[in-house]
Amino acid sequence: MTGSTPAPFTADDYRARMRRAARAAEDAGLAGLLVAPGPDLVWLTGYAPTAVTERLTLLVLAAGQDPVLVVPALEAPDAAHAAGAPALALRDWTDGKDPYAATADLLDPAGRFGVSDNAWALHLLALQQALPRSSYVSLTERLPMLRAVKDAAELTRLAAAGAAADATYEEIRKFPFGGRRESDVAGDLADLLRRFGHSQVDFTIVASGPNGANPHHEAGDRVIEHGDMVVLDFGGLLHGYGSDTSRTVHVGEPDAEQRRVHDVVREAQEAGFRAVRPGAACQDVDRAARAVITEAGYGEYFIHRTGHGIGVTTHEPPYMIEGEEQPLVPGMCFSVEPGVYLPGRFGVRIEDIVTVTEDGGRRLNDTTREMVIVD
Amino acid sequence: MTGSTPAPFTADDYRARMRRAARAAEDAGLAGLLVAPGPDLVWLTGYAPTAVTERLTLLVLAAGQDPVLVVPALEAPDAAHAAGAPALALRDWTDGKDPYAATADLLDPAGRFGVSDNAWALHLLALQQALPRSSYVSLTERLPMLRAVKDAAELTRLAAAGAAADATYEEIRKFPFGGRRESDVAGDLADLLRRFGHSQVDFTIVASGPNGANPHHEAGDRVIEHGDMVVLDFGGLLHGYGSDTSRTVHVGEPDAEQRRVHDVVREAQEAGFRAVRPGAACQDVDRAARAVITEAGYGEYFIHRTGHGIGVTTHEPPYMIEGEEQPLVPGMCFSVEPGVYLPGRFGVRIEDIVTVTEDGGRRLNDTTREMVIVD
Repeated sequence: MTGSTPAPFTADDYRARMRRAARAAEDAGLAGLLVAPGPDLVWLTGYAPTAVTERLTLLVLAAGQDPVLVVPALEAPDAAHAAGAPALALRDWTDGKDPYAATADLLDPAGRFGVSDNAWALHLLALQQALPRSSYVSLTERLPMLRAVKDAAELTRLAAAGAAADATYEEIRKFPFGGRRESDVAGDLADLLRRFGHSQVDFTIVASGPNGANPHHEAGDRVIEHGDMVVLDFGGLLHGYGSDTSRTVHVGEPDAEQRRVHDVVREAQEAGFRAVRPGAACQDVDRAARAVITEAGYGEYFIHRTGHGIGVTTHEPPYMIEGEEQPLVPGMCFSVEPGVYLPGRFGVRIEDIVTVTEDGGRRLNDTTREMVIVD
Repeated sequence: MTGSTPAPFTADDYRARMRRAARAAEDAGLAGLLVAPGPDLVWLTGYAPTAVTERLTLLVLAAGQDPVLVVPALEAPDAAHAAGAPALALRDWTDGKDPYAATADLLDPAGRFGVSDNAWALHLLALQQALPRSSYVSLTERLPMLRAVKDAAELTRLAAAGAAADATYEEIRKFPFGGRRESDVAGDLADLLRRFGHSQVDFTIVASGPNGANPHHEAGDRVIEHGDMVVLDFGGLLHGYGSDTSRTVHVGEPDAEQRRVHDVVREAQEAGFRAVRPGAACQDVDRAARAVITEAGYGEYFIHRTGHGIGVTTHEPPYMIEGEEQPLVPGMCFSVEPGVYLPGRFGVRIEDIVTVTEDGGRRLNDTTREMVIVD
């Protein structure tokens, strides 16, 4: 089920990504990009420091300049082993020295820079102080789609992660639910994700009965009972790319309203999926799913956006939300995950990862969306 | 060995911390503190969101105002369950709304605010834009010692974590080293830390032979050989507080230089420890340890600072480093961990957590610092 291991990304792959990012920055009127440890840095260089600390690590990208990674001397040997290292220069700094001065040397003192969303405020404030005429904008605000369009090698990985998540669902539905704690089922989900090839498990939500009405409930001590709806939402990373899928199962026979709400959410998910095509706006996917739920009278109980992007993280732009006019482009990958949450009673969510194709969308999750009855 | 479980911190404990922090901010000339998810928020409220994302979660503390936690509506139920929740007001916001406007309402529009070091640049930039006359300084720059002085309940937890780390060392030294991979020994360390009560393992460094010369080497595929020095450096969290200790063992009999370097580092560690007393500066601890190593001719091979604070994280202020003039205060806890790193050959590091007492220092790690010969 884990399939064959894809060839690792090479220094050339990372060089191409860094060039593309530097050009996108230039096109957006930026003097460069400042990339902190996290998904942006992993995507651009393959480098992830062991721990993100107060010691500055920052990739400086600017059109017409070679990429430079400012890195603590202690961590330079690890950084030099990253797959993208041959495509950049390392500038290391030693404890006691001022890393911001070393970084400022690389920057246009009056430039406007895109900075990783998750860069630490500590570092941004120090750069603002070192270069008082410089200015900054969040990378996602200015270049929200930098990592959004996946190439063929990335799509292969996302499809493999989706297949492993689907295999996990096919197995977990055979497990007993009634009489076991949510946390036990969550442990089984994590084991299955790893068995099917995930190197990292990011979340294993098991939200039973009234807990299902809290979209962010994880898994607790509650013992699952006969008659419960149970929201399952799980994912992680496989070959560096994410999975994320949700299905809602029922322990024993559902009642009429449980069945009706599940039908409504399934139809909403289908409508959201059918809205996916090049040129449609992100908000159109949200609107399509939401219209079904609103029409059925449950609009006030669909309390989150319809979806989020996925790539080297399980949660990134683009967001399928009212107000997001970004047009869909072939290669974008994101979740379509409407839900209905009835406080104190139960919740239903159904979620697939979908990629935009030349003429529509393709699901990277494709287990049945009919309600599955579990024991 | 895990000892008895300490009574959990109460809403009153968190209320007192938040009041103390708000007063410290006022004394430092700040209009307030903006606290992002992470160790500051855990320490002040007991709240840690499941995931830190682009959705704004921010605690606003200002003297004379009740604390307010701005939180995504989806996560408000979890936040309401935090131990510190009764001591603050929740202000939730829904997807599609502007959380920065909601936050700006709480702030003096021309105020200067301390902001968590690890707050995301995304959020800081948005606040700077929402309140153009406001200004910001990193919380650690302005209030570096906010969490540095531990009270009795915190010291109890740090001592328990130290004792569990010591028990781990006492066990691992009986394990076979030669012929096994570093990563196998690292796995044993993690298992032992958990067996002795740790809820979270943060690092298990096993750096053998030449790998020991890289202070941040973690553990790899290298098979440990007879004649190797092996640096062990491990820690994590127990009852929410950190452990961090290093010892360097030898597989079989060491040669004269290995013994000499180990002696030098042990004496340096002892000198650093003896420099700990109220009123001494942080840099004095560094200087005392460094002087021993420099005198022995290895100064250029001690390539990091002598120590870092520990508390709800395993790595925080105060830092024992040249230039840090902060005076030591009873209740501060930090590592004293000099090392010598001989490129391509081996490294030695010896580390204890030390707390400042009324008249000196007390070690929270106290296994033998003599070189232990392992199999």
